[in-house]
Amino acid sequence: MKPVIGSVSLLFYFVKSCRASGADIALDAKATLLHRIDSLNLLIYTCLLTLTVLTIWVFKHRRVSWLHETGLAVIYGLIVGAIIRYAGSTNQVTYLDAHPEPNAKYNLSVPPDIVRFHFPDKIQISSGEIPVPNKTYAYSFRGEIVNLEQNEIDLKATFDPEIFFNIILPPIIFHAGYCLKRKYFFRNLGAILTFAMVGTALSALVIGSLMYGCVQLMPASLAASFTFLDTLYFGALISPTDPLTVLAIFSQLKVDVNLYAMIFGESVLNDAVALVLSGAIQNYEKRYSTDGGFEITAFLAAIGDFIGIFSLSLLVGAFIGCLTALISKFTHVRDWPLLESALFVLMSYAAFLIAEVCELTGVVAVLFCGICQAHYTYNNLSSDSRNRTKQLFELLNFLAENFIFTYIGVSMFTFPKHHFDPWFIIAGFLTSTLGRAINIYPLSFLLNLGRKPPIPMNFQHMLFFSGLRGAMSFALAIRNTVSEARQAMLTTTSLVVIATVVLQGGAASHALAYLRIPTGQGQSDESEALPYRDVRSPAEISFGLQNMDSTHSPSSDRASDTPRGSGDGGGEKARLARLWGAIDSKLLKPLLTHARPPLTETLPAFLRPLARLLTTTRQYTQGDNGLRRTDSDSDLCIDEPQPVPTTIDPQQLWPGLVDTRISVEGITGSNI
Amino acid sequence: MKPVIGSVSLLFYFVKSCRASGADIALDAKATLLHRIDSLNLLIYTCLLTLTVLTIWVFKHRRVSWLHETGLAVIYGLIVGAIIRYAGSTNQVTYLDAHPEPNAKYNLSVPPDIVRFHFPDKIQISSGEIPVPNKTYAYSFRGEIVNLEQNEIDLKATFDPEIFFNIILPPIIFHAGYCLKRKYFFRNLGAILTFAMVGTALSALVIGSLMYGCVQLMPASLAASFTFLDTLYFGALISPTDPLTVLAIFSQLKVDVNLYAMIFGESVLNDAVALVLSGAIQNYEKRYSTDGGFEITAFLAAIGDFIGIFSLSLLVGAFIGCLTALISKFTHVRDWPLLESALFVLMSYAAFLIAEVCELTGVVAVLFCGICQAHYTYNNLSSDSRNRTKQLFELLNFLAENFIFTYIGVSMFTFPKHHFDPWFIIAGFLTSTLGRAINIYPLSFLLNLGRKPPIPMNFQHMLFFSGLRGAMSFALAIRNTVSEARQAMLTTTSLVVIATVVLQGGAASHALAYLRIPTGQGQSDESEALPYRDVRSPAEISFGLQNMDSTHSPSSDRASDTPRGSGDGGGEKARLARLWGAIDSKLLKPLLTHARPPLTETLPAFLRPLARLLTTTRQYTQGDNGLRRTDSDSDLCIDEPQPVPTTIDPQQLWPGLVDTRISVEGITGSNI
Repeated sequence: MKPVIGSVSLLFYFVKSCRASGADIALDAKATLLHRIDSLNLLIYTCLLTLTVLTIWVFKHRRVSWLHETGLAVIYGLIVGAIIRYAGSTNQVTYLDAHPEPNAKYNLSVPPDIVRFHFPDKIQISSGEIPVPNKTYAYSFRGEIVNLEQNEIDLKATFDPEIFFNIILPPIIFHAGYCLKRKYFFRNLGAILTFAMVGTALSALVIGSLMYGCVQLMPASLAASFTFLDTLYFGALISPTDPLTVLAIFSQLKVDVNLYAMIFGESVLNDAVALVLSGAIQNYEKRYSTDGGFEITAFLAAIGDFIGIFSLSLLVGAFIGCLTALISKFTHVRDWPLLESALFVLMSYAAFLIAEVCELTGVVAVLFCGICQAHYTYNNLSSDSRNRTKQLFELLNFLAENFIFTYIGVSMFTFPKHHFDPWFIIAGFLTSTLGRAINIYPLSFLLNLGRKPPIPMNFQHMLFFSGLRGAMSFALAIRNTVSEARQAMLTTTSLVVIATVVLQGGAASHALAYLRIPTGQGQSDESEALPYRDVRSPAEISFGLQNMDSTHSPSSDRASDTPRGSGDGGGEKARLARLWGAIDSKLLKPLLTHARPPLTETLPAFLRPLARLLTTTRQYTQGDNGLRRTDSDSDLCIDEPQPVPTTIDPQQLWPGLVDTRISVEGITGSNI
Repeated sequence: MKPVIGSVSLLFYFVKSCRASGADIALDAKATLLHRIDSLNLLIYTCLLTLTVLTIWVFKHRRVSWLHETGLAVIYGLIVGAIIRYAGSTNQVTYLDAHPEPNAKYNLSVPPDIVRFHFPDKIQISSGEIPVPNKTYAYSFRGEIVNLEQNEIDLKATFDPEIFFNIILPPIIFHAGYCLKRKYFFRNLGAILTFAMVGTALSALVIGSLMYGCVQLMPASLAASFTFLDTLYFGALISPTDPLTVLAIFSQLKVDVNLYAMIFGESVLNDAVALVLSGAIQNYEKRYSTDGGFEITAFLAAIGDFIGIFSLSLLVGAFIGCLTALISKFTHVRDWPLLESALFVLMSYAAFLIAEVCELTGVVAVLFCGICQAHYTYNNLSSDSRNRTKQLFELLNFLAENFIFTYIGVSMFTFPKHHFDPWFIIAGFLTSTLGRAINIYPLSFLLNLGRKPPIPMNFQHMLFFSGLRGAMSFALAIRNTVSEARQAMLTTTSLVVIATVVLQGGAASHALAYLRIPTGQGQSDESEALPYRDVRSPAEISFGLQNMDSTHSPSSDRASDTPRGSGDGGGEKARLARLWGAIDSKLLKPLLTHARPPLTETLPAFLRPLARLLTTTRQYTQGDNGLRRTDSDSDLCIDEPQPVPTTIDPQQLWPGLVDTRISVEGITGSNI
């Protein structure tokens, strides 16, 4: 430090007068303070999540299963939210009223983006100096003020609701798509689509109508502020289910895989459906209010919106997924796993952004992108990238999921725009239960008319029981809290989410026992019962090195082949599934992955030149030893490596291995 | 869909009038537009990064080494920035001037946080309806307006500069700390600390003084707006180096490990030093302007600030790192790798946030947290968490690094607050070169007086040549662009970064050849020459399963033991390093990890009860087979598993394996 101290005199010499007004310094201090408050908010959530992780460890360690980590996150969130609300000091926000400048020429129909605010600086630095002239500050648009009071805790541990749609939900939804156990998903596609598409719409409509009726009967002043569209919106947002906790217990107890696939698949899709549905309702609202009357065209346009946005988002996601598969097939980027993983993540994120830019629904795009990535791209990836992308999204999903549930808890106390109306809350609980019942029972009845192994009654009860509400409902409810009606919806939704996650989630294993749903399927079927094989399984890690094209052991192929021909889904749905399977295994898989048979064998003769162009040498050369792999792929099953012969007994090394798997299933069997 | 259509009549019946003003709808449309623009901005960067990844693949495939991915990212950024600037349509931002309400009572010394702006809504929905009354909108504070023109491209592909400090830099810096090759780092600690601490301060002072002189000589009007503190700030921000490209080439050509460690270690630390230094200068500025005159106390306070903030941040980071180590040692959370990884990530992020909340420097905390996590916690982690955390931060680092360089390129054209002053730019280039020279040559001379194997002249030239500027300089420069002086600094910094990264980076291998620095060290030393062993190495993946306590093969222990006794750092520095090594291996390692010897053997007798409490059964029981590991740990070397006997020949499986390693070194040998 000698040279530094030696240069003090130099410094002395050079420093000249440097002017800064008192307001500048105060502003700097203010900015620092705001930054510290932001950091503190984040720190609160980080600590809460850390606490949740540690407690969950204790619970798993002591084999406590009546509380899932999401329930725990909610409870911790509630406690800390209450502390912040009642013990924390209020961060004072300063307000000032302003009017447009008298002689400003404005012909704007909307408030401007930026207000240039001329504010007189009152502080004079020292008596000798001239007062600083008025300064101009930029103020950016934030929103309409409806209630002029109750703004003190505006900055307390709350975030812009849009972060849920742009940051928190995408990785959760992508992960759900990426780890979907596609074999059972496709086998139960009919039931899943019925419950998710028809069921969600039906449930939204029923809840919306019933709530509208309830609201009209209420003595409260709230009644006037609800339109039917509002209650319909409430129906749409409360309909999607999020059976995280139930699925965790399913994995643990090895419940029937078809039941698992139905509940998981439905909850993945009904999130997407509810999101698009609520968007269509809002669009309808806009159109309607512009035109000034209810019109059949506006209504049809809303349905068109729904179908159009859903299918276009699906296409965007699937297209990007397939593009990634093509890139990873025809380039050798897999030689550089880091580049490959980066490409994978960037492309998947691009699917979200492209959909958002096109005014579609990014979350839906990201879901189908995830499914395509798992189905095609995953096969082309290097084993390192497979591990890395899975582990990355698993971790992101875990953190995002627990964050959102913590936030639901904290915001119950700190979010300023809650409106507690007991009647509305009671009505909300009753109608959402009824809506779930109307989703499951009538549709199961209809499905059972055409379904070969019908859905038994106790499965139907379990499907009904799995109607927990979660992240998507909350994110939709908090998106818009301008009116009192919307605030009441948010409060009710938060309470429904908290109650279902904590209580229903806690009672799930008892419900299984009460309904006499068989658990503990044979060990041989274990690998099938798990929706998503744990990448952390030591066997696989030890195996990661070997050729990725032959990661299937014969036993797994047998297991996935056997049920297919003889299996459940007879009738038309199975025919559809078989048609799709044929297209997939003869056209898409050979085109997008290195799977056999190559396109040169499956395409008609006149397309041979094209087929040759699209077939890699690897597809030709892998020849016979690629045969096995083709079999397993054509079964639409995610090709997770099965435990392979290894010299080390995992049980010996990792005493907690069985629990590890269970815990991971609990986490990864999520879909929000 | 039958039930839906069947309920249309119900819908018809229920829908009542729903009032929404024209302004509401226009506002919604505006919000949607803004969201789309935001998404588009992100999409631009995502596509740019994807393009960079693909091009880099082509370059690596064709063995082009004169352009590193960061250089490429900058170039692509420049091209797209120019296109956006000159071809894109301008997104019109609407402005309106406002004054405080005439009768508003305000006694604020600073502008308020929120302005409540009463704006008359001019649109009437239909002639029959009553005009909507004035609405009140909230406007939040954004900043002072200095220049009332030139604001059209304000929203174009730019982000809040604070995202660099809060989102982009932390993972980069953490990764640098996490993958620091600690053995060589500690062996060259003296030189690294001298260059990083003294050298950076010296360079900042020299550049600041010279720039001040240059500015005074300039004919431009700019001269008046620069104070000495401004130029000193410029000196501080332009001093940190970022030799990514050079290090990538070093790994590729297997250059001397000590040279590598010096350049890498210095660049890791000088980022931290420069950040704290610039903060101290700003604090000084504040104090100075409040007090109204230059005072020795303010100057001393600035030095105190520097030392205090640096060491406190270091302590916060190290404390959190050690806390994580303790948690991972004394709980069995390692049985659930996902929980463990989540804990690791959350704790590391908490280090950043805690430092920020305490008004320290989060980036510095995160750096030392990363070093501690690698040194202690890493040893306690399950093999899955080791892979996962490394791969996660590697990927984050890669994306963040390339994003920041892309942004430097794009913002050159689209950031509205550039100020091109040719004289200032020329002076900036000259003085920053001179500053680097004054950092290296005199200090090397001083170091060589006490250093056993002196730093040879060609190494000094290479150190000088590695003075590329990068992310930290840019992030500091763009943080504050209020005054013209600061804008000129930003422009100059951007140009210096671009020029050094592209030109100097491209010429690095020629420089190596010209300076006759020996490259291509023997294969046997290869594992030592690599600063960060690639986790993707198939050997390790295949090895991941085995017991983590014995991941060291005898050969690696030999390699790391041999040079230590006989090695370079003789004299006092070596003694200091040996003292630290003793504390570390006898106290800290046994306390924080499962390493042998246990505390019961190393602590004095009267502390035995405490020692017994802090020793795990694993530490006792691993007995003799843990001995080897202890040896390698005490050498302060990150215990990366060496290639172990495996039945598969990696070269056969992965033809691109050698290149893979090189590419990864290029990426991970980064420090920004």
